[in-house]
Amino acid sequence: MSVSVGVIMGSTSDWETMKKACEVLEELGISYEKKVVSAHRTPDLMFEYAESAVSRGLKVIIAGAGGAAHLPGMVASKTVLPVIGVPVQSKALNGLDSLLSIVQMPGGIPVATVAIGAAGATNAGLLAAQIIGAFDPAVQERMTERRARVTREVLDNAELPS
Amino acid sequence: MSVSVGVIMGSTSDWETMKKACEVLEELGISYEKKVVSAHRTPDLMFEYAESAVSRGLKVIIAGAGGAAHLPGMVASKTVLPVIGVPVQSKALNGLDSLLSIVQMPGGIPVATVAIGAAGATNAGLLAAQIIGAFDPAVQERMTERRARVTREVLDNAELPS
Amino acid sequence: MSVSVGVIMGSTSDWETMKKACEVLEELGISYEKKVVSAHRTPDLMFEYAESAVSRGLKVIIAGAGGAAHLPGMVASKTVLPVIGVPVQSKALNGLDSLLSIVQMPGGIPVATVAIGAAGATNAGLLAAQIIGAFDPAVQERMTERRARVTREVLDNAELPS
Amino acid sequence: MSVSVGVIMGSTSDWETMKKACEVLEELGISYEKKVVSAHRTPDLMFEYAESAVSRGLKVIIAGAGGAAHLPGMVASKTVLPVIGVPVQSKALNGLDSLLSIVQMPGGIPVATVAIGAAGATNAGLLAAQIIGAFDPAVQERMTERRARVTREVLDNAELPS
Amino acid sequence: MSVSVGVIMGSTSDWETMKKACEVLEELGISYEKKVVSAHRTPDLMFEYAESAVSRGLKVIIAGAGGAAHLPGMVASKTVLPVIGVPVQSKALNGLDSLLSIVQMPGGIPVATVAIGAAGATNAGLLAAQIIGAFDPAVQERMTERRARVTREVLDNAELPS
Amino acid sequence: MSVSVGVIMGSTSDWETMKKACEVLEELGISYEKKVVSAHRTPDLMFEYAESAVSRGLKVIIAGAGGAAHLPGMVASKTVLPVIGVPVQSKALNGLDSLLSIVQMPGGIPVATVAIGAAGATNAGLLAAQIIGAFDPAVQERMTERRARVTREVLDNAELPS
Amino acid sequence: MSVSVGVIMGSTSDWETMKKACEVLEELGISYEKKVVSAHRTPDLMFEYAESAVSRGLKVIIAGAGGAAHLPGMVASKTVLPVIGVPVQSKALNGLDSLLSIVQMPGGIPVATVAIGAAGATNAGLLAAQIIGAFDPAVQERMTERRARVTREVLDNAELPS
Amino acid sequence: MSVSVGVIMGSTSDWETMKKACEVLEELGISYEKKVVSAHRTPDLMFEYAESAVSRGLKVIIAGAGGAAHLPGMVASKTVLPVIGVPVQSKALNGLDSLLSIVQMPGGIPVATVAIGAAGATNAGLLAAQIIGAFDPAVQERMTERRARVTREVLDNAELPS
Repeated sequence: MSVSVGVIMGSTSDWETMKKACEVLEELGISYEKKVVSAHRTPDLMFEYAESAVSRGLKVIIAGAGGAAHLPGMVASKTVLPVIGVPVQSKALNGLDSLLSIVQMPGGIPVATVAIGAAGATNAGLLAAQIIGAFDPAVQERMTERRARVTREVLDNAELPS
Repeated sequence: MSVSVGVIMGSTSDWETMKKACEVLEELGISYEKKVVSAHRTPDLMFEYAESAVSRGLKVIIAGAGGAAHLPGMVASKTVLPVIGVPVQSKALNGLDSLLSIVQMPGGIPVATVAIGAAGATNAGLLAAQIIGAFDPAVQERMTERRARVTREVLDNAELPS
Repeated sequence: MSVSVGVIMGSTSDWETMKKACEVLEELGISYEKKVVSAHRTPDLMFEYAESAVSRGLKVIIAGAGGAAHLPGMVASKTVLPVIGVPVQSKALNGLDSLLSIVQMPGGIPVATVAIGAAGATNAGLLAAQIIGAFDPAVQERMTERRARVTREVLDNAELPS
Repeated sequence: MSVSVGVIMGSTSDWETMKKACEVLEELGISYEKKVVSAHRTPDLMFEYAESAVSRGLKVIIAGAGGAAHLPGMVASKTVLPVIGVPVQSKALNGLDSLLSIVQMPGGIPVATVAIGAAGATNAGLLAAQIIGAFDPAVQERMTERRARVTREVLDNAELPS
Repeated sequence: MSVSVGVIMGSTSDWETMKKACEVLEELGISYEKKVVSAHRTPDLMFEYAESAVSRGLKVIIAGAGGAAHLPGMVASKTVLPVIGVPVQSKALNGLDSLLSIVQMPGGIPVATVAIGAAGATNAGLLAAQIIGAFDPAVQERMTERRARVTREVLDNAELPS
Repeated sequence: MSVSVGVIMGSTSDWETMKKACEVLEELGISYEKKVVSAHRTPDLMFEYAESAVSRGLKVIIAGAGGAAHLPGMVASKTVLPVIGVPVQSKALNGLDSLLSIVQMPGGIPVATVAIGAAGATNAGLLAAQIIGAFDPAVQERMTERRARVTREVLDNAELPS
Repeated sequence: MSVSVGVIMGSTSDWETMKKACEVLEELGISYEKKVVSAHRTPDLMFEYAESAVSRGLKVIIAGAGGAAHLPGMVASKTVLPVIGVPVQSKALNGLDSLLSIVQMPGGIPVATVAIGAAGATNAGLLAAQIIGAFDPAVQERMTERRARVTREVLDNAELPS
Repeated sequence: MSVSVGVIMGSTSDWETMKKACEVLEELGISYEKKVVSAHRTPDLMFEYAESAVSRGLKVIIAGAGGAAHLPGMVASKTVLPVIGVPVQSKALNGLDSLLSIVQMPGGIPVATVAIGAAGATNAGLLAAQIIGAFDPAVQERMTERRARVTREVLDNAELPS
């Protein structure tokens, strides 16, 4: 059976960030695959990955990259699946370059952009789950439970030092 | 029968931008509703809208707002549906404030952010369609055809002045 | 008897910053309460907190949050008390996102925004005291004394290495 | 009888922005005075204005300025009244310089900063009213009514073109 | 005989900017071709264009694009020819997004980035000429003459109003 | 005999930066005084300092401050001596706030702004020396010698690892 | 007799901005010369201009440029006279590039930077006058009078519409 | 025999960054020289270096500098060789100042700008190689092989932790 979500990233150094997306998918019982696919160093692999994504049964692609981050937008140009872009925090400009390179797509090819860094990667996993959950009541139910649990945790652990 | 996409915006002045999302949904035959819902001026309506979205059968919410743009993130906090945020171009800071207010969500509550302004609104409509299309072959087919058509148009109308 | 100032923050991790506001209130003998209230993870609690603030006798609310910081603005939308927003320094963008998300409120719902980080939290406490002091001569007197003391300290400790 | 709010601005050219604050105060029946006070061109007047504000019975000062906007912070350094700072939109940097010059005050001297430009000026008027209203039930009641009216207007005029 | 420089751009709307590059090439007698090649709307054409560039005899590629400007970097990833990137001025962010998307390439795939807008396009043409001129004395001579002429023009037309 | 240069700063914590200005003045044999003068915590001292500067024989004032850095501009508003502003690097925004607060002065009151941080403080000292040197051949001669020495040092120590 | 101030600019198109400096110098009776000197198009002229400035009797140089504005810094590297840099407002980035290119000089070579655009040019003229005035009582007296006049004008024309 | 590439930098402290360019040139067998040439501290050397570059047989110049980075642009103004500019990461502004000072050149004098910091220096070396390779099949062949090797390495080492 095919997996639902493809998690790709431009380099192994992005794993530290992108593993947050995988952890969420695992927690929510959503099948996924993960892979290093570099827009600039493996462009052909990137195109093949994007082009075959629908036929391989993927429902959502999560792509993380930093700096002049072209991976999410280029993958999006080669598939009609929803592509979630995670701006990885860059060294000099702290991910502002990553963010603008991913989010400012021209009309025609959307990328669903999330926050810079680890929080964004976590949210990429959750967004994928919410997309799937919109059409799969069991997944949606798990998301609803997760939300309730997080709310409870905030309420239960809200003690501040006196 | 319920509509699939809810398009909301903080003010009637956002319509100039947000109508692009509606035009795309219309073009692709995706049912939608549109409504002014202001995070700051109608907060209760916002919460009711978000809370009832799943039970009303919506699959995706598109929310546009400018400046300290809280609408997409707050709606996202009250529903497990995927929420697409459109940063409307603001007067002083050209939408950079809108963008950061929408995209920099904390881990836990994702907003699928698109580009600032009209291109972003167009892409919000397309992203909604791609999300639905991932689970509805007919919609996905229409997206695929749209892409092919746009590609053809670029190829056919690429004449530059000599 | 009711407390005068409510100090809320989006997460326990904001305490490191927000305790500065509490220290100032304590120093000036202004009663306050403190609480974790998350716009995105406990939205209903946030609304209840804001809605009941007037009737509970609060005079000022101080709200700190980081990133896409929606807490101050959303609390402000649900109360007519003055709300002071503290932009907590964020990881990637150093609080510029927090600042713009808090300060760029649309006409109709003001948030009294202070500086990013600990200096801002200190000033939030002082601003609350100055607001109360405008109507309570004893508090205003203590603020006046504090200012005089700080001025004396600068004058007395202004020795620079030779 | 003394007026409650002092509205000052660095130059007559700031009036276009700052009149929004005055309109709101007028609408809410809050007494105010307005005056051109320039930090850089009339520094002594600025200090006299700030120093005498408490004894003249003012409760809140609203100060608008653009560029290297020193008026709000310098007035704040000479009074223990709450000072609201309005960043006027500047020519080259669109008010980002005004905003940072006003909001990034060091610990000790707070300025309650609002949004850049006209929306900020409107909100400065409302914030002054909310501050006064926290201690004057009649004013607070008028603010509550204004909010309800604005909410109704949004709900009543939310028609979008079909 | 093959042309030396390929001038490509993401959209016909970029022509207003990119024609400056062509005018310079024309002026310096350097053969070129021009073409609309969109990274996002015609990705396959882009790859074919880049892959065949060496064998078709091109020496330099000039690529202009705006917003999340992926064209220069993606072309660069598919050819070992020098690629000059022109950040076209974008609507909301004035080309800062275009600039960062083009210049912040990861180690491995360089893009020779020039200034935002028309001045950058002019310089792209000149840079291409200087690259060719480094290996073609006749072209270099024409560049040297152009420089001398421009210097003379500045010196001759430097009259300022009295 | 009066000293030539007054070096002031908003806080003892600015000394780490501002001592660079003093070191340069010492090296060049220019008499100076140094003092903590805070725009916000000792505003009266600041005005007295600025007002008496001419009659006390100062020729140049160097003022360093960070964040909403009002010291240089306010001193400049109270004296017709040239005032050099040093933007001290701030915590959250790295001195961008300091820079804009100092440099973006309105027409009428100039501040001679130098770079953010220690390099700026060094240059403030040198700029003061160059101002004095324009009217004092001995100082100008020492500046000329310093430049020649620095050039020689660069030439002599330009060895790069092989 | 030699003139006191040299006003140079990178292009005739900078005159619109730089004439403000000349108007101020004229008003204050300070002799000056004005000239187009381009760092990039007439680099040798620039060096000759800077190198001969001291011997020609200049006391201050005012240099305006936009974009990658190298003129002020390069002139400063070739003279020990004080150099005032005026960041001319650029097309795409509104003068932020001009400002950073001028102000962020490395330790060793200061440029006295003023605000972006016309206000900066006015202030460049005033700063030159204040520098000269520090050593020429007649000029300083005229500056003092100008300040008093401007203050009076603000006080006399401070009428705001009722 | 003359070397092909001149690698210059404003200071020995830039070597940590700029050595990446040299390593790449070495790896690809391209002859180069390296030298400290400071725009501001050794301006005459800079002009001599640039002026003699063509006659000394250089084909490409790589120039790295930080802050108000004038070296690449000024060298470019004195030679018709292609000049590659490397923005060295600066302390306060993380290289944004370096980037804008280098890339925003006026029409007439291009600088081929690469990314901020070490990745940019690496790419400067590769860009020089690609420029030379466009006219030297052996060098181009080595670049092609390097690309293939890098692609293989990404494919071979793409294992992510399970």
